[in-house]
Amino acid sequence: MSTDEMMGALSQKALQLLREDAHKIETLIEVQMKTLTNRRCPLYEEVLDTQMYGLSREVDFAVRAGLIDEATGKEILFKLERNLANLYEALNQQSE
Amino acid sequence: MSTDEMMGALSQKALQLLREDAHKIETLIEVQMKTLTNRRCPLYEEVLDTQMYGLSREVDFAVRAGLIDEATGKEILFKLERNLANLYEALNQQSE
Repeated sequence: MSTDEMMGALSQKALQLLREDAHKIETLIEVQMKTLTNRRCPLYEEVLDTQMYGLSREVDFAVRAGLIDEATGKEILFKLERNLANLYEALNQQSE
Repeated sequence: MSTDEMMGALSQKALQLLREDAHKIETLIEVQMKTLTNRRCPLYEEVLDTQMYGLSREVDFAVRAGLIDEATGKEILFKLERNLANLYEALNQQSE
């Protein structure tokens, strides 16, 4: 294996791990979206915020370690943040 | 550069980043230790807990990505957790 191939494999692995973690949060958001008939659950929202913070630290670390580029990292977080914003908007409309 | 050398350099870089982040938390703990004459500050303690959580996610990611071994990751966190425990003990004794 060449050093280029190795770096490629490590970057792929890093990206895969980050996408897995992002997917877990995505699932948490979807579950909450489906149970919008329930009352708001501040604890659940805190769990989501904490998970988002954890993922942002992982992404930041992967960028600093040179495993993924900054744009890719931002893309992973941006998509999730948009989903989270949609969830909170839906929750707010419901509580009005 | 051989693949072994490259892996070594990446691991070194990852370790350096984690130690830098650990050092930032260490400094936060020391500042709080020196100002023990002040009242307890729950917000400060929450910042410390959040930072510790963020670092634990970075360490976990580095282990999963194969950049550092699990024992090294645990060692970084263990030392900080001991310092944090000392701080909280000192704060508790003071508030008694």
